[in-house]
Amino acid sequence: MTDSGLSAATLEDSVRIADDAVLILDRRVFPDRVEWVRAGTAAEVATAIHDMVTQSSGPLYAASAGLELAARQAAGLPVDAARRSLEDAGRLLAHARPTNAHPRHAVDAVLDAIAGATSTSELVESAVQAARDTTARYHAASIALGRQVIPLLPDGARLLTHCWMDSYLFGLLTAAREAGRRYRWVVTETRPYLQGARLTAHSLRELGEEVTLITDGMGAAALARGSRVGPIDALVTAADRVSLDGAVVNKVGTLGLAVAASAFDVPFYALVQDPDPTAETGADIVIEERDPREVLATLGRRTASPLVTDAWYPAFDLTPPRFVTRVVTSRGVFEPSRVREHFDLPDPVPSRLRRVEG
Amino acid sequence: MTDSGLSAATLEDSVRIADDAVLILDRRVFPDRVEWVRAGTAAEVATAIHDMVTQSSGPLYAASAGLELAARQAAGLPVDAARRSLEDAGRLLAHARPTNAHPRHAVDAVLDAIAGATSTSELVESAVQAARDTTARYHAASIALGRQVIPLLPDGARLLTHCWMDSYLFGLLTAAREAGRRYRWVVTETRPYLQGARLTAHSLRELGEEVTLITDGMGAAALARGSRVGPIDALVTAADRVSLDGAVVNKVGTLGLAVAASAFDVPFYALVQDPDPTAETGADIVIEERDPREVLATLGRRTASPLVTDAWYPAFDLTPPRFVTRVVTSRGVFEPSRVREHFDLPDPVPSRLRRVEG
Repeated sequence: MTDSGLSAATLEDSVRIADDAVLILDRRVFPDRVEWVRAGTAAEVATAIHDMVTQSSGPLYAASAGLELAARQAAGLPVDAARRSLEDAGRLLAHARPTNAHPRHAVDAVLDAIAGATSTSELVESAVQAARDTTARYHAASIALGRQVIPLLPDGARLLTHCWMDSYLFGLLTAAREAGRRYRWVVTETRPYLQGARLTAHSLRELGEEVTLITDGMGAAALARGSRVGPIDALVTAADRVSLDGAVVNKVGTLGLAVAASAFDVPFYALVQDPDPTAETGADIVIEERDPREVLATLGRRTASPLVTDAWYPAFDLTPPRFVTRVVTSRGVFEPSRVREHFDLPDPVPSRLRRVEG
Repeated sequence: MTDSGLSAATLEDSVRIADDAVLILDRRVFPDRVEWVRAGTAAEVATAIHDMVTQSSGPLYAASAGLELAARQAAGLPVDAARRSLEDAGRLLAHARPTNAHPRHAVDAVLDAIAGATSTSELVESAVQAARDTTARYHAASIALGRQVIPLLPDGARLLTHCWMDSYLFGLLTAAREAGRRYRWVVTETRPYLQGARLTAHSLRELGEEVTLITDGMGAAALARGSRVGPIDALVTAADRVSLDGAVVNKVGTLGLAVAASAFDVPFYALVQDPDPTAETGADIVIEERDPREVLATLGRRTASPLVTDAWYPAFDLTPPRFVTRVVTSRGVFEPSRVREHFDLPDPVPSRLRRVEG
């Protein structure tokens, strides 16, 4: 840890590709332990994504790396078999989790790239290039997103955030440094996986930022007037999906914070590289439910009464547009009702990199 | 555990008085371990209250028992010294925690009772009687409170609750059984101490109730339309204090749930035996802040990144009257702006038992 602001965060480099495997930093136990999950096939990558080894932007990186691995492993097959093999890998990766759409973007980009390949070597090369471009474009788009949001956040602002913005957080901090702005962060711990307490707070501290941790139930108190950690100048979260009517799907808990922010006149900025062009309204987005036993335990240790047998774990919630101040994308800042205009604006990511939206 | 509905909950009997000590069930580790903290003096009882060995209604029971113990221990003193000894005990107990006013009620009742005592034996007897009456009246008032709230909660209603209502919960269930009504409970875990997951959910299950546990961040998702655990028919919590303008001070997290309930048209009923006649507005109530290290850990184990050094732990939050549907007391059901009318209504607790309000 350093306060120089020049260090890197461990989580900026959390998916690596080796000769015969994808290595994924296990965010379920980080930073308590630094362990890498080794996935020897795209199917194992999909399992790791499903098992929450990595979340947020991680599934995009993992899926891209999994597709590159699958392409390389298909090098000895006839071209049709190689294509089928990549399609199979893509199907597994795209459906690893129902709400997080990132892997699907990588899959679409790769399958698109190999559509015209007439030889196995051409197919493999196109797939590898498309997978790497997907990752590179995603990085670049996060920085573009950061540059869009910084003008909304004055120097010294106190920001409340929830869960783990991952690549968007690093993009925001990169853009903040370019603009010479610093922020103070209030971070919710984000049960049940504690991504806020373990990932966001850790990364911010690695990067020399000022962090105050709160439990998920304290968000409204922080947003209300007169608290020690207030006033909060803005609620800033990532969005896993934003529908074309401006509804925001993000980690469960976002809704409650957004409603409280609205009640106490604090703006809520939801960050997403691109709205989801396939979701007309929030109702078109499936909200994933996960294993409720996670609610009964904390980091693997039972914390609820042994008599409790039923729990509910929706991984995400949906914030209706009326509680969203602005949706910020890599291309602009939008009132929720106007997020569709994103698609009319130029793409800020260099043209060498492929587009990933469907 | 039984589903007969006739069993008792362990936490209904959590403060006991022995010959030379007060025994307080340690709710910080219950139900993982059933341990009793032994307090040999009123000062040790105050320390136990301060250290959160018991919360909610517990401090009232503990303070009453501590005063009875102090009175008995003063039996060998001259009357003036005995009185000073009880006054000293009262001062410690009344200030053990700044927001929870219950111990003060017991102290006021006991000091009031001994004001006219002219001999030590009269003083001790009056103090013991007043302390026991305080506990008995508190039990009776909780059942009266339960009888007031039941008409608002139709049979089969699904109720969202937060933290630990303690005596009010048992009073509500007693009244529900009298009325032949059953409820389904959605319980927030209530970080950092997890009173919801450990105490509320446990007690409800001991009493044969249906319980679904959620994390604190899931409350708004549960209150929104269309969730698996919804629709929620009412948010029901205790209140540690209610000011005369109808502001509700309760465990941190209540505010966020109340704001979300209001946004999604779910009524919020705040339960308190008596509003606080000394607090004209919410601003008159001190919000206690506790050791922020509790936020960095879960049941004694560090759960936040080791790099995080700053956290915030307000034990309570204040819900403005506009987010409160009704305040329910032992005497009636009130719009928040009219809670003062509570004091115009007859006291439902048998007259043999002393009044405890200042």
